[in-house]
Amino acid sequence: MKCHLKAKDVDISTGDPKIVLINHKDAQLLDIHPMDRVSIDYKNRSVTAIANIAESEKTIPQGSIGLFEEVLAALNAKNNNKVCVHLTSKPKSIHAIKKKIDGKELKYEETLQLVKDIVKDNLSTIELTSYVTANYTLGMKMKEILDLTNAMIATGDILKHKSKIIADLHSIGGVPGNRTTLIATPIVVAAGIIMPKTSSRAITSPAGTADTMEVFCPVDISLSELKKVLKKVGGFILWGGSINLAPADEKIIRIESPLSIDPLGQMLASILAKKKSVGATHLLTEIPVGRDTKIKNLVEANKLKKDFEYLCKKLGIKVSVWITKSEEPIGNGIGPILEAIDCLKVLQNHADAPKDLAEKSIEMAGLVFDLIGKTKKGTGKKVAEEILRSGQAYKAFVKMVKAQGGPTPDIKKLKIAKCCFNYKSDKSGRIKDIDNKAISKIARMAGAPLAKNAGLYIYKHIGDIVKKGETLFTVYANTEDKLRYARQVSKEMKSYILV
Amino acid sequence: MKCHLKAKDVDISTGDPKIVLINHKDAQLLDIHPMDRVSIDYKNRSVTAIANIAESEKTIPQGSIGLFEEVLAALNAKNNNKVCVHLTSKPKSIHAIKKKIDGKELKYEETLQLVKDIVKDNLSTIELTSYVTANYTLGMKMKEILDLTNAMIATGDILKHKSKIIADLHSIGGVPGNRTTLIATPIVVAAGIIMPKTSSRAITSPAGTADTMEVFCPVDISLSELKKVLKKVGGFILWGGSINLAPADEKIIRIESPLSIDPLGQMLASILAKKKSVGATHLLTEIPVGRDTKIKNLVEANKLKKDFEYLCKKLGIKVSVWITKSEEPIGNGIGPILEAIDCLKVLQNHADAPKDLAEKSIEMAGLVFDLIGKTKKGTGKKVAEEILRSGQAYKAFVKMVKAQGGPTPDIKKLKIAKCCFNYKSDKSGRIKDIDNKAISKIARMAGAPLAKNAGLYIYKHIGDIVKKGETLFTVYANTEDKLRYARQVSKEMKSYILV
Repeated sequence: MKCHLKAKDVDISTGDPKIVLINHKDAQLLDIHPMDRVSIDYKNRSVTAIANIAESEKTIPQGSIGLFEEVLAALNAKNNNKVCVHLTSKPKSIHAIKKKIDGKELKYEETLQLVKDIVKDNLSTIELTSYVTANYTLGMKMKEILDLTNAMIATGDILKHKSKIIADLHSIGGVPGNRTTLIATPIVVAAGIIMPKTSSRAITSPAGTADTMEVFCPVDISLSELKKVLKKVGGFILWGGSINLAPADEKIIRIESPLSIDPLGQMLASILAKKKSVGATHLLTEIPVGRDTKIKNLVEANKLKKDFEYLCKKLGIKVSVWITKSEEPIGNGIGPILEAIDCLKVLQNHADAPKDLAEKSIEMAGLVFDLIGKTKKGTGKKVAEEILRSGQAYKAFVKMVKAQGGPTPDIKKLKIAKCCFNYKSDKSGRIKDIDNKAISKIARMAGAPLAKNAGLYIYKHIGDIVKKGETLFTVYANTEDKLRYARQVSKEMKSYILV
Repeated sequence: MKCHLKAKDVDISTGDPKIVLINHKDAQLLDIHPMDRVSIDYKNRSVTAIANIAESEKTIPQGSIGLFEEVLAALNAKNNNKVCVHLTSKPKSIHAIKKKIDGKELKYEETLQLVKDIVKDNLSTIELTSYVTANYTLGMKMKEILDLTNAMIATGDILKHKSKIIADLHSIGGVPGNRTTLIATPIVVAAGIIMPKTSSRAITSPAGTADTMEVFCPVDISLSELKKVLKKVGGFILWGGSINLAPADEKIIRIESPLSIDPLGQMLASILAKKKSVGATHLLTEIPVGRDTKIKNLVEANKLKKDFEYLCKKLGIKVSVWITKSEEPIGNGIGPILEAIDCLKVLQNHADAPKDLAEKSIEMAGLVFDLIGKTKKGTGKKVAEEILRSGQAYKAFVKMVKAQGGPTPDIKKLKIAKCCFNYKSDKSGRIKDIDNKAISKIARMAGAPLAKNAGLYIYKHIGDIVKKGETLFTVYANTEDKLRYARQVSKEMKSYILV
């Protein structure tokens, strides 16, 4: 049974799931019930969405269909367009999900169909959650992980390169305020190495690498523009979500994050699919070990290292795994512009550039040099430092920013929000610990990452001695209201622990 | 951070999940993101809902909050009421879900907290699905099933009785059109046995027991009225959803049905919690075995029988498990009124009453008599038949219907929909099989169960000989449109298989 209905833009967004509103009379006519899966066709596009029912004529009159933002975007439809609606059958991959939760191993073709349905939003939240949970409770064999990786690659775009060495780096869940990518990437690129770096926006943190890079230039450019940037500069720093590389990943993350689970197999598949899709031949993977990170101890870290090495071998990627200790933010700024200033200071070799950020970035770039064979093992760091100190990394960064469509970076134009307050220590002592979650929450309440100029600047790190009344950090916001919220959270949460 | 917003009834229902719409500016102010869990307070009520974001002022202006039907009902709020909104922390039982998916056994207190959060809608679809899936993939120990049963009982109302014998019956997923409950219950009640029968409405079938009973009288009455009915008549047939008995069950079913899974442990807990909540001391459980039923073979049926016996012993319920063979609809009418007519004919001993329905109902009631010790094993059936044939069962049914608020049943007043068509056999032969799914779909397309007078009447059962051109069933609908849809499905799906 099909039916033509008039699209109504209801101006509602869910954040991802696709929802449509159907008048109760049309729903009865089409035998559609709340939570049913319907297919909406418009011109040559088709999307699957979940039906909610409008109980009266007020919101959605009979003959109309309310489309949430996600549906309008996917259909490229507008108000009053005639769309075709019908109840859809269950997607093909339901049987694969059932097979997986029944403890049976999936064939590659089944995994591929499943990933296709994930990418097309054909699966409901319940179905996708069931698959993700089963991967967690039952685990995934190495063959299944490899299949999932290949299926994720196959359902997205792939970047092709002429060069035989394509470098990439990745860090497994770290601590906020850690913008090494903006420094290490230009160091590597300055050495003539191709490095197509995709990065993420903040979900629960005050800034992601993509948010910070966006302070300087656009991070969501088309595939054709991206190729031009790569040809001209040899590298880029873009938002992964703007490019269609392994797009299943984002859909899976939406299920994992509220459960605070990240089934190891899925995590490996997701990282490696993205790296393989950008064409990486060499990959440096950082595994930060610490209280606030994903990997809590060295035993886990070493097991993960072996899995990485096995899978990368199968995928034809040379990998180097770097296990680090992670306890507190790297750098002083928290929030997109505040972090961008830190990065620029390091790249421009300012005297007051945060040393921890510079050092970690140099080490990272050096390990990439060692990995690709540009330097002898252990000597890459020296080369990286020279490139940074000589200003070549900065030059490469400027070239990258301009190629991506930004102006020449100018530290004076990076304006921080005007309303501020200083958070002072209520006693004297040595800083034993910093609660990264509290720091993140304060920066978010101040308006980051939506307000790029909001956030906080921290003056003190672990081990520092402070006196009672000394400022620990300054919070920046655009309105007194926002500042009041941030102040309230600062009072409620214990951000600094002194002994 | 709290905020007072003006409620706006958006006239949208999801079918169960609670959703609110927040203007993007308020969302930013409150640090609320799409899919975040928020708490809405109104007077002394509070509900947890998922936030969707209104991207403009059009749907939800700043200062207002759009409430879906489910939220309005739970808060007992109306348009323009001021409600208080704030971001909520994750519910306590998240740790229990995590523990379960990590393969650890839950303590009773943890299961109880989890069920409390399920009942209060504190869990998101993702969280609840994860728990349900883990119960399926990892299984449940008998102790966990018992804990879940007790937690489900503890989070709902419980009926108390003076009588020492309270009979109940249950059938595990059968075939549509099988209305034995409407006959067996009055037989048992006519014998002076207390039988508080709760039943379900149709979800995917053309009628549930509650829908059919509703043809005669209301099936959703308050707890105090229900007690009066029980005192007066000794039994009732009500919709389980109208009473707060083991309310977690419905929430869990919402997750299981789209996955077509029903983890055995959860199914057992759900059935037994409902039975224990109505105060049942004796329970007859039918396990239909067949192609379209939940249990496919005798080995599975016998294993389930043992589980029932073990759990009922622990819960203090005497159980009798009846394994039956199930292949085709019982009775001739499909759809609420058509089924009600079948039942009334059996109760009134009409000459053309469907024999299969009468026989199965008699056997059921007889097994209840044997179980409670009213009759010697194997002789209950005879007593049940006498009660039905003598008209006592009909008298008890009339008393029940009137006590529940209905008029004296009158078969002449049960009017079937006026538009109809006869579906005829395209060849001669013997009926080998009937596709119950096709029969259900046709009845639904004709308008059942929403249109109580729609559905179909089947003339032929398995084993019958038919001639080419002979009518197999008649479809009834209220409009020519609906009839056309039903006719289309009749053509597309092969409902009768002849040899």
